[in-house]
Amino acid sequence: MFSVGIDIGGMSIKGGIVDETGKIIVSDRIITERNAEKDVENICTLVKNLLKSTNISESEINGIGIGCPGAVDSQSGIVEFLPNLNWEDVEIVKILELRFRMRVRITNDANAAALAEYKFGAAKKYDSCVMFTLGTGVGGAYIENGKILEGNLGKGSELGHATLVLDGIPCTCGRNGCIERYVSATALIEQTKAAMNKDKDSLLWKLVDGNIDNVEGKTVFDAAALKDKCAESVIKTYIKYLSESMMSMMNIFRPQAFILGGGVSAAGNVLLDGINDYCKRYYYGYKDAPIPDVLIATLKNDAGIIGAAALFI
Amino acid sequence: MFSVGIDIGGMSIKGGIVDETGKIIVSDRIITERNAEKDVENICTLVKNLLKSTNISESEINGIGIGCPGAVDSQSGIVEFLPNLNWEDVEIVKILELRFRMRVRITNDANAAALAEYKFGAAKKYDSCVMFTLGTGVGGAYIENGKILEGNLGKGSELGHATLVLDGIPCTCGRNGCIERYVSATALIEQTKAAMNKDKDSLLWKLVDGNIDNVEGKTVFDAAALKDKCAESVIKTYIKYLSESMMSMMNIFRPQAFILGGGVSAAGNVLLDGINDYCKRYYYGYKDAPIPDVLIATLKNDAGIIGAAALFI
Repeated sequence: MFSVGIDIGGMSIKGGIVDETGKIIVSDRIITERNAEKDVENICTLVKNLLKSTNISESEINGIGIGCPGAVDSQSGIVEFLPNLNWEDVEIVKILELRFRMRVRITNDANAAALAEYKFGAAKKYDSCVMFTLGTGVGGAYIENGKILEGNLGKGSELGHATLVLDGIPCTCGRNGCIERYVSATALIEQTKAAMNKDKDSLLWKLVDGNIDNVEGKTVFDAAALKDKCAESVIKTYIKYLSESMMSMMNIFRPQAFILGGGVSAAGNVLLDGINDYCKRYYYGYKDAPIPDVLIATLKNDAGIIGAAALFI
Repeated sequence: MFSVGIDIGGMSIKGGIVDETGKIIVSDRIITERNAEKDVENICTLVKNLLKSTNISESEINGIGIGCPGAVDSQSGIVEFLPNLNWEDVEIVKILELRFRMRVRITNDANAAALAEYKFGAAKKYDSCVMFTLGTGVGGAYIENGKILEGNLGKGSELGHATLVLDGIPCTCGRNGCIERYVSATALIEQTKAAMNKDKDSLLWKLVDGNIDNVEGKTVFDAAALKDKCAESVIKTYIKYLSESMMSMMNIFRPQAFILGGGVSAAGNVLLDGINDYCKRYYYGYKDAPIPDVLIATLKNDAGIIGAAALFI
C-alpha cells in the first residue's frame, strides 16, 4: 500500500507518493500562487498527476496526508491562517476528500517532519522523540508510540513558544523571550550580526564580503571552522540557548531521542558536541535518569512529503 | 469494582479503598519511619487492614495504585530515590504484588493528583489537562484521554524544571531559573520575605507578629486582602511568573483545562482573576485558538489516594 504526501511551503507545494517503507516513489512540485482557491485547485491537479504517473491504482492508496505551516486545525481539517500564502479558513481536507473520495488528514509541518524522522529517519529506532526544526522560526513536535501530540484542536506542540528568557526579546507571538527568539536561524543570524558589529576585525566580515546583509545561518559556523574567536563565542552562546531549551523539553517529555532539523541543524557535530557536553553537565536527573540521544534529522527536504504521507503509514 | 490507593508523603502514608466513582469508602494513615523496609511492611499492614475493614472481597479489587514523590520509575515499579523517607531502589510494586497477588502500579505523586482531578475533580469534564501543584516544589502532569504522560522510564512531566528565567535563581536540580524557583510555595515565601525586608511598614510584618520566620504561603494573600500595597505587589509579580509558566505549558500541550493544586492554589480567585487577565492579554493564539480553562483543584488532600486508586479505575 501507498499514500500521498503533500508538503505545503511558502514558495512551493511538494507532493509525492510514498510506500510503506517511507520511500518516495514519485514526486513533483508546484509554485504557490498565494491564492487559496487557485492553490487548492493546483494541489488537486498535482495529486491527480502523481496518481496518473505510476501504475499504482487508487485502491492501493491509503489516503492523502498534508503537512502545513501556519495555524492548522488538525481535528476539523481546516487551514485557519497561513499568511505566507494568503490562506484563511481553507477547508482543505473536506475539499480533497470530496474530490478524491479518499481519506485525507492534515497536520502542522513540524509534526509532519518529526513523524517522518520518527518512522523512517533519525529516530526510527526509538519509541518517543521530541523534534526542534531550527529555521525561520522554531517548529516543535513530540511523538510517542507513533502518536503525534496535537493538543486541543491541533494547537499544541508550539515548543518554540515556551519561554526561555522571562521579559526577553519580543516575539512575533505577542509574548517575550520565547525559545524561538533565541534558537531559530533568524535568531542566530541576529546574534551573528550583533557580534560582528562589536568586532570589526572578525573573520565573519570577510566571509560576507564586508556586507552584513549577506550573513546566513551557516556563516558563523564557517568562521568558527577557521577558528574565528568572535564566531566561536557566538556559537558557544547559541549552544547554551539551544541546550537550555532542549533540557526544558527533556524534563517535560523525557523522550528517548531529541532530533534537530531545519537549516541550522546542518552544522551537525559542532552542535551535537556542544549540546551533549552541556547536557551532561547540567542535565536534571536523579541517578540513572536517561539522557535522550540527540540526533540530526536525516531526511532533509524529503521529510515534509514523507511525514505527510506517514499520517497514513 | 474497587481499587486501593496509597499516597506516600514525607510525614505520613495514606491509604484508602476507592470505588469507581472516585469515592473513598474507607481510609487510614500511618506515620513514616524513614526506613524502607519498615515503611513497606507498614504499607502492607495498612492495605491488609483496609481490606479487612470492609465487606469488599479481594476479587472485587482491581489493583493497588501508589502515588509517590521523589524519583519513581513507573515502568519497573521501583522507587529509585525518596530522600525524605531515606528510600533508595525500593521495588515496591514487586513486593506488594507478591504479598497481595494483585496488580500493582505506581506513579509520581503529581501525576496521581492530576489523574484524580482529571477523572473525578476539577477537570472531569475535559479530555485533556495540565496540572501544576504549587507546594514545596512544583509538581506537574499532563493527561490526555485518560493517559498520563510518563516519559521514558517514567521520568517525564517534570514541568517545574523547565526554564522560566535563563541564568535565573539556582535550582535544586542543578540548573538555574527553573519554573519551580519562581512559582512554588517556597518561592512565594522567599518573594514575600524579600519584599518585607524592603518595606518595614508593610502590614505583612503585623501578620507575622514581627517575625519574618512566620511567613507562610498564604500570608501575602491575607495582607493583600487588607489592601497592603507591598503584598499586592508581591502577588502581581508572582502571578506574572505563574502566568508565563502556564502559558508556556499551554503552548506546548494546548490542554482543554489547566488545574492548579497545592498549597498556593488555596488563594483561589485572586490567582484565577490574575491569570485569566494575563492570559487574555498575552496568550499565543491565532484567532479562535482555544484558551484553556484555568481551574483550582477540588479534591485537596484526598487527591493523592483517589489518584493512586484511579490507576485502576
